[in-house]
Amino acid sequence: MIINESEIKQMEKRQRAALINKLNGYKSPVLLGTQDLQKNTNLTIISSFTHLGSDPALLGFIFRPLSQDSHGLKNILETKIFTVNFINEPMIKKAHQTSARYPKEVSEFDEVGFTVHYEGAFKAPFVKESSLKLGMIFKEKIDLNINNTHLVIAEINFINTLLDFEHLAEVSDVAVNGLDTYYTVKKNIRLSYAKPNIKLEEL
Amino acid sequence: MIINESEIKQMEKRQRAALINKLNGYKSPVLLGTQDLQKNTNLTIISSFTHLGSDPALLGFIFRPLSQDSHGLKNILETKIFTVNFINEPMIKKAHQTSARYPKEVSEFDEVGFTVHYEGAFKAPFVKESSLKLGMIFKEKIDLNINNTHLVIAEINFINTLLDFEHLAEVSDVAVNGLDTYYTVKKNIRLSYAKPNIKLEEL
Repeated sequence: MIINESEIKQMEKRQRAALINKLNGYKSPVLLGTQDLQKNTNLTIISSFTHLGSDPALLGFIFRPLSQDSHGLKNILETKIFTVNFINEPMIKKAHQTSARYPKEVSEFDEVGFTVHYEGAFKAPFVKESSLKLGMIFKEKIDLNINNTHLVIAEINFINTLLDFEHLAEVSDVAVNGLDTYYTVKKNIRLSYAKPNIKLEEL
Repeated sequence: MIINESEIKQMEKRQRAALINKLNGYKSPVLLGTQDLQKNTNLTIISSFTHLGSDPALLGFIFRPLSQDSHGLKNILETKIFTVNFINEPMIKKAHQTSARYPKEVSEFDEVGFTVHYEGAFKAPFVKESSLKLGMIFKEKIDLNINNTHLVIAEINFINTLLDFEHLAEVSDVAVNGLDTYYTVKKNIRLSYAKPNIKLEEL
């Protein structure tokens, strides 16, 4: 079956969004923790982020066009820091609920029932319940003029984990695809570094 | 356990790359199909891509700094089109093998054993064995000066799938984390659109 450009464009708006949001495949849903200068905390689930490089350790996050509702992005631009908190299976429903449009003065931590945790002098809120957390430093915002979204580039300042180094391999047991469907993830195979004309080995 | 910035920076290069590549979480590994103007085909596995928007339907792909070995990116810049081919479990080993550094004149399709497929007048090679394929039109390359990587923005021109619309929900049964570990993915739960003070429902 071919779904061509004009068929995509003619789809009803919500149906198109649901379909196109599937087509970047599986991602890890994470909770982005921020606060403003008055220490009002904000927590929101996102999955549009990707690896930019290992040295320095950079991640890139895509944000919707800045609007009244962009509490998380505004906090990041104000304070230059934020947290990334991975989600395990028991956290899925609470994490999904953070995507509701709460007023700015309401903290999603309180509304959905996650515990605020601060790590040392780092003034952005972590989710205590998360077993893998990243303290992030804002580096750059690049405005993507093609559709008014924003690429935020940030450096991993520190990793805070309940896991030992070996088990850090499994960042979580949950993936997401599209806007509303969560998946359970299980290790299948680890393969050796690929070289021409050398048979791959299972590690 | 806290792994701080200086500990991250002091890690041995490969160990750091392995760790940091884990921290963007699960992604869908896909095969990127390209060809040059002489019709030499190239196929390479990537996972660093993300959703940029639904209207127009845009995906963003991160590429390493341009070098002699950037056959895929060079082909995209030359021809302005490429294909994205999702991977199912039986395809994992062949797909992983495309990450080996083959010379430009060698086609990874032949080397690893995938079948080239062309769709109508679209002059970029698809992987016949893939059950979900996207024909992509290059829109823009943004150079990320912070680490010399490149963000390629491309529009979904058409979707080519063996699945019916209902089953398109599951784009594939495979996710990847880091550079070498593949995971099996199973649907866990689909949740209703979140609103403040409304209980989520399972759909």
